[in-house]
Amino acid sequence: MRMSALLAPTLREQPAEAESDSHRLMLRAGLIRKVSAGIYTYMPLAFRVIRKISEIVRQEMDRAGAQELQLPIVQPAELWLATGRWQEYGPEMFRLRDRHGREFCLGPTHEEIITALVKAEVRSYRQLPLMLYQIQNKYRDEIRPRFGVIRGREFIMKDLYSFDRDEAGLEISYQKMHEAYVRAFRRCGLQTRAVEADPGAIGGDVTHEFMVLSPIGEAQVVYCRRCDYAANVERAPVAPPPHAAGSEKPVPPAERVATPAVRTIDELTAFLGVAAERVLKTLIYLVDGQPVAVVVRGDHRLNEVKLGRLFGTSRIEAAPPELIERRTGAPAGYVGPVGLEGMEVVADPWAMAVADAVTGANAADAHLIHVVPGRDFRPTRVADVRVAEPGDACPRCGGTLETSAGIEVGQIFKLHTKYSEALGATFLDEDGKEKPVVMGCYGIGITRTMAAVIEQHHDERGIIWPVTVAPYHAIVVAVNSRDAGQAQAAERIYRELAERGVEVLLDDRDERPGVKFNDADLMGFPYRITVGSRLAASGEVEARRRRDGQDVPVGVDGAAALVEQWLREDLAALEP
Amino acid sequence: MRMSALLAPTLREQPAEAESDSHRLMLRAGLIRKVSAGIYTYMPLAFRVIRKISEIVRQEMDRAGAQELQLPIVQPAELWLATGRWQEYGPEMFRLRDRHGREFCLGPTHEEIITALVKAEVRSYRQLPLMLYQIQNKYRDEIRPRFGVIRGREFIMKDLYSFDRDEAGLEISYQKMHEAYVRAFRRCGLQTRAVEADPGAIGGDVTHEFMVLSPIGEAQVVYCRRCDYAANVERAPVAPPPHAAGSEKPVPPAERVATPAVRTIDELTAFLGVAAERVLKTLIYLVDGQPVAVVVRGDHRLNEVKLGRLFGTSRIEAAPPELIERRTGAPAGYVGPVGLEGMEVVADPWAMAVADAVTGANAADAHLIHVVPGRDFRPTRVADVRVAEPGDACPRCGGTLETSAGIEVGQIFKLHTKYSEALGATFLDEDGKEKPVVMGCYGIGITRTMAAVIEQHHDERGIIWPVTVAPYHAIVVAVNSRDAGQAQAAERIYRELAERGVEVLLDDRDERPGVKFNDADLMGFPYRITVGSRLAASGEVEARRRRDGQDVPVGVDGAAALVEQWLREDLAALEP
Repeated sequence: MRMSALLAPTLREQPAEAESDSHRLMLRAGLIRKVSAGIYTYMPLAFRVIRKISEIVRQEMDRAGAQELQLPIVQPAELWLATGRWQEYGPEMFRLRDRHGREFCLGPTHEEIITALVKAEVRSYRQLPLMLYQIQNKYRDEIRPRFGVIRGREFIMKDLYSFDRDEAGLEISYQKMHEAYVRAFRRCGLQTRAVEADPGAIGGDVTHEFMVLSPIGEAQVVYCRRCDYAANVERAPVAPPPHAAGSEKPVPPAERVATPAVRTIDELTAFLGVAAERVLKTLIYLVDGQPVAVVVRGDHRLNEVKLGRLFGTSRIEAAPPELIERRTGAPAGYVGPVGLEGMEVVADPWAMAVADAVTGANAADAHLIHVVPGRDFRPTRVADVRVAEPGDACPRCGGTLETSAGIEVGQIFKLHTKYSEALGATFLDEDGKEKPVVMGCYGIGITRTMAAVIEQHHDERGIIWPVTVAPYHAIVVAVNSRDAGQAQAAERIYRELAERGVEVLLDDRDERPGVKFNDADLMGFPYRITVGSRLAASGEVEARRRRDGQDVPVGVDGAAALVEQWLREDLAALEP
Repeated sequence: MRMSALLAPTLREQPAEAESDSHRLMLRAGLIRKVSAGIYTYMPLAFRVIRKISEIVRQEMDRAGAQELQLPIVQPAELWLATGRWQEYGPEMFRLRDRHGREFCLGPTHEEIITALVKAEVRSYRQLPLMLYQIQNKYRDEIRPRFGVIRGREFIMKDLYSFDRDEAGLEISYQKMHEAYVRAFRRCGLQTRAVEADPGAIGGDVTHEFMVLSPIGEAQVVYCRRCDYAANVERAPVAPPPHAAGSEKPVPPAERVATPAVRTIDELTAFLGVAAERVLKTLIYLVDGQPVAVVVRGDHRLNEVKLGRLFGTSRIEAAPPELIERRTGAPAGYVGPVGLEGMEVVADPWAMAVADAVTGANAADAHLIHVVPGRDFRPTRVADVRVAEPGDACPRCGGTLETSAGIEVGQIFKLHTKYSEALGATFLDEDGKEKPVVMGCYGIGITRTMAAVIEQHHDERGIIWPVTVAPYHAIVVAVNSRDAGQAQAAERIYRELAERGVEVLLDDRDERPGVKFNDADLMGFPYRITVGSRLAASGEVEARRRRDGQDVPVGVDGAAALVEQWLREDLAALEP
């Protein structure tokens, strides 16, 4: 392909709308153009990347034994009504009516439609296990589309669904997909963490999100620097505190002190001159509508997901101020566990380990000091209900946890029989019994993966594509296209590269060398061959890898072979 | 792939809903399943066909110099309002609102959005010509979806748009696409006719529809058996009648005869005992609101598209009865050209050639006989305004025309500057002048092509895929899977075929041989290797081509090589 004919308009200015490195670079390199909020045109270079990522994902899904099909984007409401998700999805689902007034949605996901298919077509255990997938546009009417294609309203996703006879089969399918995801992301040159996440309302054991650690991510991840443990912050268990050595001196009896208009932890630590680690926060929640007091250390954060899991519910909300005052006798900010009655009191183990604590006094403008957990109050439950923090111990290896934001590029999830039971997708098992199929679902954001690759692979000059997903492998640049010798040599190397199977662009534009070099760096092709003044002097050209930027002089004859060799090496390095 | 794992559920019964051979076979062979009217799931076998057709089309578009991209499916209303098509499209366009109440449609086509892109990104003649395309779901809310995927509401289409500096450039792009379409359909094994069609309101010269002649087609085509001329019936010109030899005897003067309650041509020919070829029909139309009388021979049909083109308008409608009576003095059925005044009278050349004609008398219950065109009436215009009929002469070679219904699988169309002017997509030409880009658009129905291939390639047993688009090339069937020798030989041939690059299925199901053979024929794989009782007797298996059904005995050792050789031959035969 010749650059003069390629539609890849670059921008010299920083686009004002760009909210992240990948967003900025995709606009600047002519990869995407916005059509509406969260809705983009994928320009020719981006579409080549999308096809390459899709093909890698396709190969790994096929390798795991899955079959590709294509389900409708426009889906009738009836199936969604049957599972209750027509209501549940709320305004995130795009909805429309056809000319006869029938309701449809634009598929945000395809559990309903594929379960209905399997219900109709699978009758016997002999047809299981089955893994079906598609690569297709998906739709979510995000309230706040962000970061270009990372959080779009129209985006390309691979979604796969597994169907098994039983939980043991699901576990096998799940592990196959876990392995396929590790391989697929690795082949795309993307470093991901398989992050344990909470399965939420569906229940069951762990689920995994494949995260790219990045400051622009919208999920919070804790991970271990020593082992490969990683978890969504909502999920990560906190190891119990180290056993305190017996304290030297006895703690005096609890004592009430006046703390007028002192409500926050910051105000309290300043007012009393104590560290936040010695303060116990007492928060009142409504759990399934019942008030529950939760005690955590002043420097810790309550984890609502853990609290919900403790009580086996997702109906968790902060109690309103008037209820707090009515049930504790104190306004919010002055509540404490001592003498608190008529409700469950849940304390975090780290709160219980504070030897000499400060708490609210259950009265306005007063706190208690010298509170000893266990002596002055006894919670109804002690349980891990706090958010893991940097410095906490890794629950797997005891190493030190770090936290980071993360971009979720994939998720694997056990659905068990949620959808098969709701829609009646059963099969006749070998024992003659009718059973619901056991399902899993597995997503990869294709367009989001493209952006995440750029987040991980760029410098101040532009994108640095991993060879496996680069739109073209190489670009040949004649410094002066009007110099016949340079133009001829560039043309020859271009042809030789193409013959060797290297995907190559020829920058044949009548532009200044700086413009050509800048565009090549911005677009991020892995290899550049520069045909310049060295040609006339020594018959040589310069080859460089984008990632190191070092020019290697090479004869015109040998340039294509050198680049082909680099390509083979770099491709091999990304094999799983 | 093993049949036991493939999701390809076949139906033994004829599906009641099927309206055409391809629809019936796609349902029976497990290629598609209906989700809603005109909305289908493409099952794994169909999706492989779709990918193969798409790849052939992609290669031909790339070969013609085009670039692939992807435009949004969900498109904002604003662009469509700018060209007036938001209203024009009517109920065929799916429309929706996002959570903020903004209006969008599901793209039925992409002229607006791509013209806006080119407007933003193309500024100079140096960036032209440009050809951009995508392969993507399209949406039309058909009032009557039919024939499975042939007329669906969600379907896959390749749409390409060309952008040129001038009409000469457009002509080149148009010819490139014409050639690419001929090659692409040929490679898919599809016999098409490039049919001249009317460009309609946009004007300009001819446009081409690529038609598969088929009784279920919804377009009417005339074509020549001798040359490759073909045209949409609306478009096909009719050669003038052969010059009549001077008639022997003079025609008597025109004479009024009573024809009470005789209104139709059939009634008239019966009542007067004359052939329809001697009757002149006179029809009153409103052309741009003005009454026009149109005279055609009694056995011919008026072509409204030709009439519109004659007057340069698309506002053509039959005049209401009261207007006919008021302006001619006679009820419809008794109108004639003799003495008709106060309006244009258009006569077809074949009407003018009738030597001794019968016409209406412009009075109730009366006709004129012995009317001589030119003697008894003089039309204001003589022009080809009738529909071409079987037996008419080919306008290109003089051969004999036939007519047929046709399935439109592709269309190439000159848009000229319709959209670039409406949306302001201009470029700075070499002469320093700002000019609108000159556009063409070019569509191929991918899913419709799949169905059309089946319409052309099937027999009473099932589909007969051309090798280039077959979901798998070959299937290996062990007659008795429980026979260890047969199972081993089948497995070995299956592996050898796969190693040779033949896409192969192994029917490893524990089914009766008849079921396996029927499924293989129904699904239409080009080659079948049957491992049966001959194996034990002589060490041989049987290979057959689906299209001829002749078994060829071949040793186990040679089976894979034979099928590979057939595959190479058959692939070569479909090279353009």
